[in-house]
Amino acid sequence: MLREDLFKNLTAHCKEYGFIFPSSELYDGLAAVYDYGQNGVELKLNIRQYWWEAMTRLHQNIVGLDSAIFMHPKIWEASGHLSAFNDPLIDNKDSKKRYRADVLVEDWIAKQEEKLEKEVGKAAKRFGEAFDRAQFVHTNARALELQQSIDSTRTRLANLLTGNDLAGLKQLIEELEIVCPISGTRNWTDVRQFNLMFATRLGSVSEEANEIYLRPETAQGIFVNFLNVQKTGRMRIPFGIAQVGKAFRNEIVARQFTFRMREFEQMEMQYFVAPGSEMEWFEYWKEARLQWHLALGLGQENYRYHPHDKLAHYANAAVDIEFNFPFGFKEVEGIHSRTDFDLSNHARVSGRKVQYFDADRNESYTPYVVETSIGLDRTILMVLSACYDEEHLASDDGKEDIRKVLHLPPALAPVKVAILPLVRKDGMPERAEAILHDLRLRTACHYEEKDTVGKRYRRQDAIGTPYCVTVDTQTLEDGTVTLRERDSMQQQRIPAERIYEAIAPTTELNSLLKKL
Amino acid sequence: MLREDLFKNLTAHCKEYGFIFPSSELYDGLAAVYDYGQNGVELKLNIRQYWWEAMTRLHQNIVGLDSAIFMHPKIWEASGHLSAFNDPLIDNKDSKKRYRADVLVEDWIAKQEEKLEKEVGKAAKRFGEAFDRAQFVHTNARALELQQSIDSTRTRLANLLTGNDLAGLKQLIEELEIVCPISGTRNWTDVRQFNLMFATRLGSVSEEANEIYLRPETAQGIFVNFLNVQKTGRMRIPFGIAQVGKAFRNEIVARQFTFRMREFEQMEMQYFVAPGSEMEWFEYWKEARLQWHLALGLGQENYRYHPHDKLAHYANAAVDIEFNFPFGFKEVEGIHSRTDFDLSNHARVSGRKVQYFDADRNESYTPYVVETSIGLDRTILMVLSACYDEEHLASDDGKEDIRKVLHLPPALAPVKVAILPLVRKDGMPERAEAILHDLRLRTACHYEEKDTVGKRYRRQDAIGTPYCVTVDTQTLEDGTVTLRERDSMQQQRIPAERIYEAIAPTTELNSLLKKL
Repeated sequence: MLREDLFKNLTAHCKEYGFIFPSSELYDGLAAVYDYGQNGVELKLNIRQYWWEAMTRLHQNIVGLDSAIFMHPKIWEASGHLSAFNDPLIDNKDSKKRYRADVLVEDWIAKQEEKLEKEVGKAAKRFGEAFDRAQFVHTNARALELQQSIDSTRTRLANLLTGNDLAGLKQLIEELEIVCPISGTRNWTDVRQFNLMFATRLGSVSEEANEIYLRPETAQGIFVNFLNVQKTGRMRIPFGIAQVGKAFRNEIVARQFTFRMREFEQMEMQYFVAPGSEMEWFEYWKEARLQWHLALGLGQENYRYHPHDKLAHYANAAVDIEFNFPFGFKEVEGIHSRTDFDLSNHARVSGRKVQYFDADRNESYTPYVVETSIGLDRTILMVLSACYDEEHLASDDGKEDIRKVLHLPPALAPVKVAILPLVRKDGMPERAEAILHDLRLRTACHYEEKDTVGKRYRRQDAIGTPYCVTVDTQTLEDGTVTLRERDSMQQQRIPAERIYEAIAPTTELNSLLKKL
Repeated sequence: MLREDLFKNLTAHCKEYGFIFPSSELYDGLAAVYDYGQNGVELKLNIRQYWWEAMTRLHQNIVGLDSAIFMHPKIWEASGHLSAFNDPLIDNKDSKKRYRADVLVEDWIAKQEEKLEKEVGKAAKRFGEAFDRAQFVHTNARALELQQSIDSTRTRLANLLTGNDLAGLKQLIEELEIVCPISGTRNWTDVRQFNLMFATRLGSVSEEANEIYLRPETAQGIFVNFLNVQKTGRMRIPFGIAQVGKAFRNEIVARQFTFRMREFEQMEMQYFVAPGSEMEWFEYWKEARLQWHLALGLGQENYRYHPHDKLAHYANAAVDIEFNFPFGFKEVEGIHSRTDFDLSNHARVSGRKVQYFDADRNESYTPYVVETSIGLDRTILMVLSACYDEEHLASDDGKEDIRKVLHLPPALAPVKVAILPLVRKDGMPERAEAILHDLRLRTACHYEEKDTVGKRYRRQDAIGTPYCVTVDTQTLEDGTVTLRERDSMQQQRIPAERIYEAIAPTTELNSLLKKL
């Protein structure tokens, strides 16, 4: 199946099986906002707990925090978000549609790339096995022109964005003769900056109240609590503060399902280190965070590091962990060496001393920070898209039989074991419920008695339940049940009292943590 | 100790030991917003999980949901929040200060009550044991006048608020000759309505963008997802949907620490039932929710039901569970029979059919709803204020020794067991760390080696750690450790490999769930 079809099917599957619903769907939805359904919320909680415990339980020197979404507005002055957290926007005067100027240029580049690939494809067919792509592009006039135009435009765009050159952006759009996809005209307004933070007003009457912002990242809540946590927790450098929470960005171009949302959840950890040791810790966390991903078993080949070409103003090193989403390799997590940028700026703007006394060095300093920042929603989408499968099975009657299955890591599955009476009579439901009652405090169970057991297996496959237990006539005789495993669909008989023992090694969260 | 002193000390303790920090403190704070520190966040997670599992694991017919804070603005039209979620405000023209009109009247009533109690107190002293309060108030002219004025004002205020009579509220303030506490004058503006929802704008340019609101309650996210969850989860009535999440209210009078905050977290469960069965389920949840509280062991005498005298427009029955906070009995949770008000209104405003087909009754209907709504922050404050204690112990040197201790339910404690080498030498730290390594994936551990073991015990008492394990010389010889229990301060020696077994019966979350 084509990858875009797979992604479309996954999106439909997420809704059909209670993982992700478009938000406010009853009212035709709210763009780029989503709700997690009954299975999605459990998957989300499991991923969040896996991250939280990997941070706080496996590291005695990392503690948690839960700071508020509302923060003092001066914090965003210190962090640079008030002045620099902008998107460049441009309007077409005929269609009245608004676009991100940089995205218009990127779309233009993508079109040139398509043209180039078409030329390359034709030539490859002609030359057969002897075809050398690089040589072709360098010797074919049309291909070379396309390649040079792509490269130069990309460089120019990057420089304009870095230089915050809005007039230059407009000039580039005009030079490239980019037209509005709706009106087809080149009748553009100037490019303007648009701040991505959501504003609201705190207090009783709007005209007198304070304008505050919904935080665009959780990190600043950690920085402004650095002293509180360090002192009350008697923390010694190096140490980390971990936080999971909502953040908000008024994205103009919100695409690709839950990949880029206006309301989303971050899992961030700021690690405070002595100046000069940050590169060592940057390497440590770069490696440790990849290991966290690999423990999920989604395939090493689906991950790659992407070092940042251009560093943000606060960073002296930065790398993304990219995952192979259905729409290509994209960032799921970033590891950044943020220097002392944030703590120093909070000290400057607040007028307070934000330093740490290092007893070993016998000196006070502003700590350096290495952060790991992962999107919880992106991680959920990563897991779902890696695990969704449509298996073509041989059916008894020769017809095509498609099994939709989520091969979720068992420890992340919303339901660990479904307990199914074979039929709704002969005491089987009662026996199944007794088993449920024994198990429900130890693991996440689901009881279901409607429809044939085959249909029930398939529904559990579709939500990623790793195990099904069936209670049948033999159960009533000898106390054994059928244990069916999701991926292999293999069944075995085991005594009912050994169900937990059989499933725990793969379904418990510790099975993931032990790999780290 | 006086209860207000105790509350003041608790507030200081929460900050000193990393439970609750004033938000944005580095920038002098943000009114009525708080952050949870390294211990507070763990307590919060434990309470949240206790609620979540009590709802979803113990009830096969209750599933979770995690809907977004951003919702379609029409939702608040349907729910009534746009028109009716207001506070009546009044300004003093001289001081330019703004007040809630109803709070001004309530403060006036409180002053009259003080005067009355003074009269009563004097008389009680005079009459001694023979004193009969009711008789005194009815026969003493001054006392009777005060009592009647209190009663009639209270009734009048309630009627004005119910009738939404703003002019009447102003007239009452004028009649009572209430003065501004700042300017001392009676130069008041008219009373105006002020909506408590925070507004922001979604989209790229403010003038064209949609005004949306931060949700003032999580419940509506459940109502608008009723059909999605019911259909995709194949739920049959009665069934429930549970959710934990942030809500926001622009409170004018935000008082009493974390009791009333502008940003707070709710744990709500909406139970969908057949019309006519709602009273039976109202009684069921009223009882079930109190049991959830009682399982925490904070004292049955500290709880009471408070039935609502005046029902909200959407309810046909409502009761609060009140807890005995340091500032008196106050609502921590509400159980409300909301009829079909919300689902019907969403059907009306959205133009969609929001009904359920009941196979048993062979008919479609709009389900009725019984909801349980508990404030997570209030629950945290309830637990902290019930558990905080300053014990006066006999000290060896005859001096007064005060032990600050949090008698937290062990299953809610941020740290379950602290592992302490007696001294920092002779291999004790290494042995303690080996024990930590064995235990850390099974329970929340904390390792500490600085200061005398006595000081370390006290620090663990202060954060509510139920058990401390000390590694000493004998540990190196026979493998036993000292296990010290927080409340009794009793110590016993047990083999190191039996620590988990010794503490699990009280510290595991299941120990609470099993009581339900």
